[in-house]
Amino acid sequence: MNGAAPDPRRVPDCAVRVAYRVPYADTDAMGYVYYGHYLTWFERCRNELLRAAGLPYAEMEARGFMLPVLEAHVDYRLPARYDDEVEIAGWLDEMRGVRCRVRCAVLRGGETLCSGWTVHACVSAATRRPVRFPPEAAALLAPFASPQNAPSAAP
Amino acid sequence: MNGAAPDPRRVPDCAVRVAYRVPYADTDAMGYVYYGHYLTWFERCRNELLRAAGLPYAEMEARGFMLPVLEAHVDYRLPARYDDEVEIAGWLDEMRGVRCRVRCAVLRGGETLCSGWTVHACVSAATRRPVRFPPEAAALLAPFASPQNAPSAAP
Amino acid sequence: MNGAAPDPRRVPDCAVRVAYRVPYADTDAMGYVYYGHYLTWFERCRNELLRAAGLPYAEMEARGFMLPVLEAHVDYRLPARYDDEVEIAGWLDEMRGVRCRVRCAVLRGGETLCSGWTVHACVSAATRRPVRFPPEAAALLAPFASPQNAPSAAP
Amino acid sequence: MNGAAPDPRRVPDCAVRVAYRVPYADTDAMGYVYYGHYLTWFERCRNELLRAAGLPYAEMEARGFMLPVLEAHVDYRLPARYDDEVEIAGWLDEMRGVRCRVRCAVLRGGETLCSGWTVHACVSAATRRPVRFPPEAAALLAPFASPQNAPSAAP
Repeated sequence: MNGAAPDPRRVPDCAVRVAYRVPYADTDAMGYVYYGHYLTWFERCRNELLRAAGLPYAEMEARGFMLPVLEAHVDYRLPARYDDEVEIAGWLDEMRGVRCRVRCAVLRGGETLCSGWTVHACVSAATRRPVRFPPEAAALLAPFASPQNAPSAAP
Repeated sequence: MNGAAPDPRRVPDCAVRVAYRVPYADTDAMGYVYYGHYLTWFERCRNELLRAAGLPYAEMEARGFMLPVLEAHVDYRLPARYDDEVEIAGWLDEMRGVRCRVRCAVLRGGETLCSGWTVHACVSAATRRPVRFPPEAAALLAPFASPQNAPSAAP
Repeated sequence: MNGAAPDPRRVPDCAVRVAYRVPYADTDAMGYVYYGHYLTWFERCRNELLRAAGLPYAEMEARGFMLPVLEAHVDYRLPARYDDEVEIAGWLDEMRGVRCRVRCAVLRGGETLCSGWTVHACVSAATRRPVRFPPEAAALLAPFASPQNAPSAAP
Repeated sequence: MNGAAPDPRRVPDCAVRVAYRVPYADTDAMGYVYYGHYLTWFERCRNELLRAAGLPYAEMEARGFMLPVLEAHVDYRLPARYDDEVEIAGWLDEMRGVRCRVRCAVLRGGETLCSGWTVHACVSAATRRPVRFPPEAAALLAPFASPQNAPSAAP
């Protein structure tokens, strides 16, 4: 991180955006979306990010790689409600060695409802041990990385 | 079924009962428990029914059997709410060939909030094809079956 | 119901269809979609059915009506899996007095993965007691009803 | 925070502990508990922490207070699996002004599977605006706070 760190809530142009309509199932008795469901929303966006990059997660698994979550974080700013039409935006924030970080934000109209990130390890499905990302992954994901954090195949 | 069919909502003495405290996560914007969550509650009860019978489902899977759901039904009578302390009661209703039916009811105090059933097939984990229940299953589950529907190893 | 009852799994032309991509969140350790999630999928479809009819559920609630579920049923035929692109089809099956029944089916390619129905009561949000459907509801929903079961405002 | 910060994964003696049996519903196709469900587990623990303190959340809501989540964080170390019997431990980490932070950890046998925290605002149910915690809350919660972070009613 440097002195001119970007606002983590600003969605960069490289982000993939997924439209989502909030069902009753996602709400709770407070009348808002339950706080745990946003992690499922983030997953929906990561799935489309990988698909857009030509690396659908189902294919990664078929080729023997898994991306379990090491860390998850959400900052809640404004509540989403039943039947809201939201957009979930996601982009690659960092990728080095056996780890990567994906940032997500949930948007409604011009507002950011919440934002957060997940950190993933690349593991072998066979051994469940960390392995380097498939070599082509960095290149395929580069268009979806914020400029200052573009993944690199270099050490 | 015969002419003197018992009230399906009456919980027989053979039933296993599981205590459960309703979290906010299970509620929805109507202020009630979301209708889909009751199927998870039924599962919690089936898990304890199998454990009480000495056939924990995890062990059945380890021995190569699975019990996927073929059919699920719920009749909703009264809503459960956040922080309610409910009991989920479950018992074996029928077991023949490669299928069984488990009935469940959700109780709060003296009231039945909802009731329903699931029908399961016994399948081989290896082939995912129907197989007969392990021979000892009928005997182990007999104490948890309503008297008129006791499972039988006979054809 | 009459003697020539239609196959409940056949999706009539009047059905609303919703596309849905299965997230990891919906799967379970068997590698299939967990059986309870289909009720959320049915809800997603009912939401779009009501919206297509010009009666979005959020608006019905704003006008003081609620449609709690009285009964839910699912027949599971084939499992859905992670990343499957499915369609959830839904149509009005019956509507009389204070109740209606909606049928749903989950399709993947040409296959029906599961089908089922929910029965709803129309209740006043204020009193939580049954009330007749808003008078225009029958007319608005008619295009989404199977022909033999078209709703009628007549007694 | 000071130089001698305690290991955030160490569960202090003041923690409330909740036993929980993992249902199939919580697992995913990787064979592990889905990462979003841990936030529901944390909620189950917070509910019991507040109850143990004599401040059940349902009562707080009845008295006009709500505790929406502002921030959630989870560090995943080891996966939980179907039928695991885990303990969810939770304690008050900080409480000042209109905010508090609760730390949670999920334990299985002697192992910490994951740990994390949630930050909550105290808001008025009527206005949904931040308000100070009810004056007696700090005293009631003190026994459940890590010593270096005991809540204080002082400014």
